[in-house]
Amino acid sequence: MGNRLVWVAGVTTISALTLVALLAGHATSPEPTEQPAEAIRAILSSQQAAWNRGDIPAFLKGYWNSTELSFAGSEGIVRGYEGLLQRYRKGYPDRSAMGELDFSGLEIRALGPDAALVLGHWHLRRTGGDVGGVFTLVFRRLPEGWRIIHDHTSAQKQTP
Amino acid sequence: MGNRLVWVAGVTTISALTLVALLAGHATSPEPTEQPAEAIRAILSSQQAAWNRGDIPAFLKGYWNSTELSFAGSEGIVRGYEGLLQRYRKGYPDRSAMGELDFSGLEIRALGPDAALVLGHWHLRRTGGDVGGVFTLVFRRLPEGWRIIHDHTSAQKQTP
Repeated sequence: MGNRLVWVAGVTTISALTLVALLAGHATSPEPTEQPAEAIRAILSSQQAAWNRGDIPAFLKGYWNSTELSFAGSEGIVRGYEGLLQRYRKGYPDRSAMGELDFSGLEIRALGPDAALVLGHWHLRRTGGDVGGVFTLVFRRLPEGWRIIHDHTSAQKQTP
Repeated sequence: MGNRLVWVAGVTTISALTLVALLAGHATSPEPTEQPAEAIRAILSSQQAAWNRGDIPAFLKGYWNSTELSFAGSEGIVRGYEGLLQRYRKGYPDRSAMGELDFSGLEIRALGPDAALVLGHWHLRRTGGDVGGVFTLVFRRLPEGWRIIHDHTSAQKQTP
């Protein structure tokens, strides 16, 4: 019984030390893939919020501000941040066209230390009829933070 | 005139040395992104050839043989190599449905040493009507070679 108490005390000490080490590790050197996924989730969450208050320029802040940014879809390939802004302004001229955006089923896969692939579903709830589908985003870690460098978005047949 | 000849001779010598250096560099340590791009182009070229001889299993060899393989499009997200094979067999039951495939406008961007983003256009010439559009491929360097780990393909309105 005496031995058992010592053993339990030993396990408790190890657990406490492990916990301290884990907490310290979390504060100073987090899991390599954890921070990118958190940063990417935060960007997508900000985009959703920006869209739902009708703020297209704020929605676009998740994208790389470059002429090399690319956007693929049923219209082919659109190039550059300005091109994308024009496309959104034309396609979604008012709040009713914009509807309410919801991202779901996000899947974030690391492609190395500075790149990530993100898959997900998008849904727009609109009085004129819902639309939705799937998207593929490629993020890169840039000096300004994680940004979408390529977006491929498809519409999907909606079930009533 | 004498000085001018010396200068021209000097430029020629430098050019020859530069050329030798470039050739040596090409033979021993190619541009880091060059080899992956060549490997990727070779895979896409094999895929196109396989499709055009009606060989769907050979076409699929460019994809990661894994349940984690993903394929996004107007049907949502399809998972796994087997799922993709079934989808192709169902969607393209015979040579006439398969038509003649052409990839064009390929753009290969490195995403680090072991990952690449590929954009391009696809076109199927068919007696029953052409189809085509754009695709986004994410390649990873795996032990078996470069393979597509994610494919997002969209149809695009065809101009007559």
